Amino acid sequence: MTDRGAPTDVPAKPLGPVARRIPPGEDRERLVCDSCGFINYVNPKIVVGSVALWDDRILLCKRAIEPRDGWWTLPAGYMEERETTIEGARREAWEEAYARIEIDALIGVYNIPRISQVQMIYRARLLSPEVAAGLESREVGLFAWDDIPWDEIAFPSVHWALGHWRETRHIAAFPPFAEPPEGL
Amino acid sequence: MTDRGAPTDVPAKPLGPVARRIPPGEDRERLVCDSCGFINYVNPKIVVGSVALWDDRILLCKRAIEPRDGWWTLPAGYMEERETTIEGARREAWEEAYARIEIDALIGVYNIPRISQVQMIYRARLLSPEVAAGLESREVGLFAWDDIPWDEIAFPSVHWALGHWRETRHIAAFPPFAEPPEGL
Repeated sequence: MTDRGAPTDVPAKPLGPVARRIPPGEDRERLVCDSCGFINYVNPKIVVGSVALWDDRILLCKRAIEPRDGWWTLPAGYMEERETTIEGARREAWEEAYARIEIDALIGVYNIPRISQVQMIYRARLLSPEVAAGLESREVGLFAWDDIPWDEIAFPSVHWALGHWRETRHIAAFPPFAEPPEGL
Repeated sequence: MTDRGAPTDVPAKPLGPVARRIPPGEDRERLVCDSCGFINYVNPKIVVGSVALWDDRILLCKRAIEPRDGWWTLPAGYMEERETTIEGARREAWEEAYARIEIDALIGVYNIPRISQVQMIYRARLLSPEVAAGLESREVGLFAWDDIPWDEIAFPSVHWALGHWRETRHIAAFPPFAEPPEGL
C-alpha cells in the first residue's frame, strides 16, 4: 500500500521535456521528465453517481454534452480531488440536477477497463422533489420504473445500476454488484 | 455520467505551454494547454489490495520502499490503466508477495480525501502458502491474528481493513465498510 507522495525535491509538474520510458524499479512505460524527475502516473478514473429516489420515482438527466448528448443518464461524473466518493455523488446530483440527496447504500462498483473507469453508483433519497437541469443537462425528471425512457438510455452502466437498484430496493444491506461479464 | 473522451482533434498530451485556469463550462482550475486544448484532469487515485488468507493466517508484506519503509502492510497498490479492481488486487499480491489469490468479497471502500485516494480492499484466499518478497517488499509472511505485528503496521487503513475483515470473517455477503470518521 503506497502513498506515492512525490519526493520533496521533485516538482508536481514537469519542468522540462518528457519522454515515454520505464522508470527505475517499475515494469511499464510512463511519461517521465528527464530534467526534473517528474513521472506522470496515469491511473483509472472514478465516476461517482446515484440512483436517487423521490417516493418511487427515479431522478434521470437528459445529457446536454457529448458523448450521448440528448440521451438519459443518472446524475454521475468524475470524482474530484480531496472529496470522498459520497461527497462526489452528492456534488454530481447538485451540479447536474440541482438535487439534494442523502446517500444510502452502494449499489455497484462497475469496472469499465476499456476506458479505465471505475463507476461507483449509490442508492440515494432525494431530500426534495424540486430538481432542475444543471449546466450539463438539457432537462431532468423523476420517472416511475415503467416510465423510464429505456430506449434512450445513454450508457450500459445506467442499465446495470437501474437493474441492480431494482433487485435490491427492499434490501437494507447488501454487497455491491459488479459489472456484468458481457459488459467487458 | 460522462465518458470525457477527448475530442478527436485534441492530442493526449500538451503540445505547448500550460496554464492554470478554469476551462469553459467548468467550475474549477485545471492545467490547460492554450495552443492545443489539452486539459490535465487530475482525479483521485484508486488503491486496490487484499486481506489474503491461508487457513487462518493473513499475508502481510514488510515494505522495502518509502513511505514507511520497514513497516508491515497488506499487498496493495495503485490500480493501473485497463485493468479491473479485482485484476489490480491480484496483480499487487503477485508483485509484492508472489502470491496467487482468489478474490472473495469487498471488505472496504476507504476514502482518504487528504491525499485524494480511494482504497478498495478485498477478502481473498491464497491458492498456495508459498509466498516470497517482491521488489517492493523486504520480507513477507503469513500471520495468525495474535501474531500480527500490530505496533509495526504501516498505515491506518491497514488497521481498518484487518479489523473489518475480522468482523466479517464468518459472513458470506455484506456491504463494504467505509473509512472510520476519525480517519478523516
